[in-house]
Amino acid sequence: MSFKIKEEIRCAGGKLLKVMHSSKATGTSMDVNLYLPQQYYDGTAKGKIPSLYFLSGLTCTPNNASEKAFWHREADKYGFAMVFPDTSPRGPNVPTDPQGGWDFAVGAGFYVNATQPPYNTNFNMYQYVHSELPTALTEFFSSGTRPTGVGSIDFLENVSITGHSMGGFGAVAGFLKNINKYKSCSAFAPIIDPTTTPWGVKAFTGYLGEDKSAWKQYDPCELINNVPYVSGKEILIHYGTDDQWKEQYLRPENFMKLVPQSLWANHINVKMAEGFDHSYYFVSTFVPEHAEFHAKHLGLI
Amino acid sequence: MSFKIKEEIRCAGGKLLKVMHSSKATGTSMDVNLYLPQQYYDGTAKGKIPSLYFLSGLTCTPNNASEKAFWHREADKYGFAMVFPDTSPRGPNVPTDPQGGWDFAVGAGFYVNATQPPYNTNFNMYQYVHSELPTALTEFFSSGTRPTGVGSIDFLENVSITGHSMGGFGAVAGFLKNINKYKSCSAFAPIIDPTTTPWGVKAFTGYLGEDKSAWKQYDPCELINNVPYVSGKEILIHYGTDDQWKEQYLRPENFMKLVPQSLWANHINVKMAEGFDHSYYFVSTFVPEHAEFHAKHLGLI
Repeated sequence: MSFKIKEEIRCAGGKLLKVMHSSKATGTSMDVNLYLPQQYYDGTAKGKIPSLYFLSGLTCTPNNASEKAFWHREADKYGFAMVFPDTSPRGPNVPTDPQGGWDFAVGAGFYVNATQPPYNTNFNMYQYVHSELPTALTEFFSSGTRPTGVGSIDFLENVSITGHSMGGFGAVAGFLKNINKYKSCSAFAPIIDPTTTPWGVKAFTGYLGEDKSAWKQYDPCELINNVPYVSGKEILIHYGTDDQWKEQYLRPENFMKLVPQSLWANHINVKMAEGFDHSYYFVSTFVPEHAEFHAKHLGLI
Repeated sequence: MSFKIKEEIRCAGGKLLKVMHSSKATGTSMDVNLYLPQQYYDGTAKGKIPSLYFLSGLTCTPNNASEKAFWHREADKYGFAMVFPDTSPRGPNVPTDPQGGWDFAVGAGFYVNATQPPYNTNFNMYQYVHSELPTALTEFFSSGTRPTGVGSIDFLENVSITGHSMGGFGAVAGFLKNINKYKSCSAFAPIIDPTTTPWGVKAFTGYLGEDKSAWKQYDPCELINNVPYVSGKEILIHYGTDDQWKEQYLRPENFMKLVPQSLWANHINVKMAEGFDHSYYFVSTFVPEHAEFHAKHLGLI
């Protein structure tokens, strides 16, 4: 479970750390980026520094959001750490998409636990992101090899989750399936109706099999009807109205129709941002609003 | 001189435009990114919106800084437009580095006018950046095909310049050689002593020839002794103390030793940022300080 620090990069008031560790869930080495805010270094945090997990989209590594979403200044402003997991296991023995696509297998783990061979050996990103990684980070930061700094970071309890596209799906599904774990959830252009849209159908078929009853456990459109609302919790979602994937691959209207009749009515806020697309230009624009939202739920403001 | 708008991307309060046009200086089509701030769209600017030119570093296209430097929010805050030129001409007929490197020729135009064949046909980036492009943008925004918006942008007169690494060199040299054109200059980790450091020596030899007297016209270490100080003008420079290129490729101490005895003594501020490297994590961290510096010189604050 030990981590290796590959790079430590000064950024804003803190540091971006590129680390790697060996994962039991995926059977591979996994890359993770961490942003440790100013408060980790100057010791001004009141108590433990909470953390926000950012799940990335198809084809991404931990670097895309680290470079382009610009969470750093917001993390310093409120005093939370960021965790950027990878989007899948990688390596010579990890099976790839038999169709040669970029929307399944490597770079496209979809944050589920695969049950179908050959993917079930490595593609256990649900277990990895929501359980193994938080525990491993907690152990790492309690060890003698923890990154230099005076603060204490909470990777397990006072935590929230967000993500983009496939990672937005992963954040919403993971939040609802771990409703006592995360304080809040947000998403940028999530694949919110995965059982009827092409990316989700391909991934769920490949990882979970043809039997659609197995898909329901990860389907946000189902989960909002099955997971009882927990007081104080909220989900914030943004879509760009000019998102090139929205009509066919995301279909937010399917989800939005279900929310008012669901157990989560009035606690899910889906906002349509006029003229924005699916890119990190969109994500970075709304990061300050999402940061403030999570900071409130994490007790920082 | 007509521009084609390839993409118009909503970002922060304005839009990032990816445009292309035909250049006489380079004999090629040239890509340019523009950030048009909120004030271009809402008409709240008092008078013409000034612009800030950002010259990028080795291997970059206009996209690197657009995606990773985070000027957008600062441009909205003060009300200036951004111009991100490409780093060189590109195309099937543009000569490449005979050594196959990434530090000369394509992606590495160094913002000079080449005199040596075969580079002198296309590699006239000095002429392109400081003269042709500003004029072409002015014509474009005066034409019937200008980007939709209500504001008026000044690309010619109330303008400033900045850049990173090779582009930081280009900004400082271009500023000093056009001292009545730009209101202010800043640079992130500029190649400030190009006549004694490897990247500069390779570029100047290839573009300008073996005769080092031809190199002086672009050398910041010479220009600060030859260009009389103009009242009110200033240069702001940041380096990261952990910049991996600093010792061998940038050598700021050579320049800093000359400043106090130069015509520009007390008007060039070189700051060393503890622990920062050469990357866009460094650039984006100091963009707010540079934005405020330019906004002051452009009369916006």
